[in-house]
Amino acid sequence: MHVVGTATKPVRSSHEHEVCGSGFKRLTPVGEAFRMLVNSLPKKSPDLESVSISLALGRVLATDILSPIDMPPFDRAAMDGFAVVAEDTYGATVNAPIFLRIVGSVSMGVTTSLHMNRGEAALIVTGGQMPQVSNAVVMVEYTKQRPDGRVEIWDEVHPGENVSCVGEDVQRGTIVLKKGTLLLPQDLAMLTYIGIHRVMVCRRLRVAVLSTGSELTEGSAFVEGKIPDVNRPALMGAIRQLGCEPIDLGIAADEFDQIRSKLQGGIRTADIVLVTAATSVGPGDIAPQVINSLGEPGMLVHGVAMRPSMPTGLAVVNGKPIISLPGYPVSAYLAFLEFVHPLISYMLDADFLPRPTVRAKLSRRVAGILGSRTYVRARVHATEEGFIAEPVRTSGAGILSSLVQANGFIIVPEHVEGYEEGQLIDVELFRPVERAQTVK
Amino acid sequence: MHVVGTATKPVRSSHEHEVCGSGFKRLTPVGEAFRMLVNSLPKKSPDLESVSISLALGRVLATDILSPIDMPPFDRAAMDGFAVVAEDTYGATVNAPIFLRIVGSVSMGVTTSLHMNRGEAALIVTGGQMPQVSNAVVMVEYTKQRPDGRVEIWDEVHPGENVSCVGEDVQRGTIVLKKGTLLLPQDLAMLTYIGIHRVMVCRRLRVAVLSTGSELTEGSAFVEGKIPDVNRPALMGAIRQLGCEPIDLGIAADEFDQIRSKLQGGIRTADIVLVTAATSVGPGDIAPQVINSLGEPGMLVHGVAMRPSMPTGLAVVNGKPIISLPGYPVSAYLAFLEFVHPLISYMLDADFLPRPTVRAKLSRRVAGILGSRTYVRARVHATEEGFIAEPVRTSGAGILSSLVQANGFIIVPEHVEGYEEGQLIDVELFRPVERAQTVK
Repeated sequence: MHVVGTATKPVRSSHEHEVCGSGFKRLTPVGEAFRMLVNSLPKKSPDLESVSISLALGRVLATDILSPIDMPPFDRAAMDGFAVVAEDTYGATVNAPIFLRIVGSVSMGVTTSLHMNRGEAALIVTGGQMPQVSNAVVMVEYTKQRPDGRVEIWDEVHPGENVSCVGEDVQRGTIVLKKGTLLLPQDLAMLTYIGIHRVMVCRRLRVAVLSTGSELTEGSAFVEGKIPDVNRPALMGAIRQLGCEPIDLGIAADEFDQIRSKLQGGIRTADIVLVTAATSVGPGDIAPQVINSLGEPGMLVHGVAMRPSMPTGLAVVNGKPIISLPGYPVSAYLAFLEFVHPLISYMLDADFLPRPTVRAKLSRRVAGILGSRTYVRARVHATEEGFIAEPVRTSGAGILSSLVQANGFIIVPEHVEGYEEGQLIDVELFRPVERAQTVK
Repeated sequence: MHVVGTATKPVRSSHEHEVCGSGFKRLTPVGEAFRMLVNSLPKKSPDLESVSISLALGRVLATDILSPIDMPPFDRAAMDGFAVVAEDTYGATVNAPIFLRIVGSVSMGVTTSLHMNRGEAALIVTGGQMPQVSNAVVMVEYTKQRPDGRVEIWDEVHPGENVSCVGEDVQRGTIVLKKGTLLLPQDLAMLTYIGIHRVMVCRRLRVAVLSTGSELTEGSAFVEGKIPDVNRPALMGAIRQLGCEPIDLGIAADEFDQIRSKLQGGIRTADIVLVTAATSVGPGDIAPQVINSLGEPGMLVHGVAMRPSMPTGLAVVNGKPIISLPGYPVSAYLAFLEFVHPLISYMLDADFLPRPTVRAKLSRRVAGILGSRTYVRARVHATEEGFIAEPVRTSGAGILSSLVQANGFIIVPEHVEGYEEGQLIDVELFRPVERAQTVK
């Protein structure tokens, strides 16, 4: 937006509207914008720290984990039954059982010193160590113990049958978990299993959040003529959801020096700095100018081919990424999802699980904008004919309720003009489709 | 599994194998089993607590939230420009502009006392309060300020154009967030927006975890003949992932009284009690018997039509659900996903987001079991022809690495015999498909 003439007071748009494309010299496509950002970051591995596995859930593994041991560490029974020499059982049937002498029994978790010979059997439990020379287990269902200390075998087994061999689960020296793995509950089980109790993980990224706008107040008090700052609670929550540590830089008034000094604090303490509002192209939109004053290379992208969130700016100062987010809460949040989320993934060298999607029928037409990626908030509900996606009616990115009522996004790509009523489209869910029957 | 004859020592299977269906009197279908469990729970609302919204992320809202105010609280400009009386602009074009007298300006966050008349205009910023009598905004792009204190208007606007009306986003007295909502970042923004700083949420459920097995050790030390207890770290992690509080009941040896007293402690302190192992049908499988000794109604289901995890038991004692999970880590974890996860959802009266799924081509046949729900661990990778799902080869639920190598599950439903090589099937992902290009 260009301001024509001289305003009696500076015109600014802290919650700036989505200006027409013409306000920006060029709108950079989302993918290109993100590449420009990461290509300007210094090549640097994330900082590491060592944590106990009791605190490692959801953290990003910083090294490959090689197993120091074989698991199982010995051949063990995979079934309850009798350890036998398989060759002794050949030809056994219910009608022509074979008889073996019971020479002992093996319990779980006890190292066995039992040594068997041909013609002998040992009672064994699942997980029990196979006695020397035995090479198979006859399931207890196919046996009958006799009062004379022998066991009837009713079925033949082949060598290795019902036996779990040394290293079958994990072989010593092999990689069990790869660098970059976001640790899940079963990974903690695996680490415990192979006797590893501390791991190196990436330090949590610190993401600083500054809101700008002289009209903003802290949420806790209503002040006449002021409006609550809703972006910091949302962004700090989104940062926490990604396992990062939010740093609250508070609110800066629309003053160059105030914004600059708070951003400097952010660059000093954080890995990523977010600043909301003052990022459009009006005279009050000073965030890009402040960022450029902080150091090189400064603003890389200003104006992204994305609706909403077009005024988003991407910058690097002193090797730290700064994202200049629009002030409208919907725009700020969507720009966070589109840029900050993959930036965190890039800096940690780890992938996050994608959002779930459902295929749904559109209840009415949605328009895209050729050349821009368009986010449509939608409400998906289940019907007998399948999922229906209802675009949430909204007059713009100022309407916060559109993000609260919606349970998903329809993303209209750059090359698509729109989707028609009745068309089947993918919706990315951020809430469940509906109050599902929890009792299945 | 029936043990025939008299074992010289009790045969037990703390990490019991998946016994044949015949070992159980009946295998209860998963859905029916879950219904039996929840139908035996007392009808009881979850306990509530009040939290600051800074701590409310991911918590379950316990009440509907009604907005105490209209948002916006007044008519406000949706664009930077000039507030006008729309009727004054009718017929305006670049070639035939209309001239209005500028009588003032409106800033953001300031209550305006400005009162306009026909033939007048006021400079206004996005979000600024519309002065009395004005009813539309002409975008600044279609205007030009003149040195004589007038503004040229080059385009006509209709009443309401570029104005965001009182209550357009949120109407006073309407429900903005429903009971049962799992609070997202944008919901915290909404609560801040309408001036609500504390909310009632469901108290985090406490889920107690007991491992049984004389062969088990705490993970931190290797003891000859013992094996590390891997189920508690995994289950406690899975409990945390769902926003609940794990209670560690430790390890009980395979002794009736020891298991019983630890379970009693769990019932006293937790909302849900999980116990692993000793849940099959061998003589050492005493968990069901212990549970039945604790109170009514005791075991409701023992043996579920699900592979792995068939020996799972579901019980209620003194109004508290007890889930008897198989000892094999893969079985324990899958039974957790199938029963404990929806139980938590049921008890909190809230839905979780589903796991993401991808449609992938099967690299080889997978077998189901008619009448049972079968979980196949799979590794999904992206190729130029689409996603390929490779079932992870494993000799059974004792193979923990199958859960670590896999990034998803193929669930073969009860009525399906199996899926063929090359068939397109849905895979539920618990890890990302592959090291995606973070730079898009």
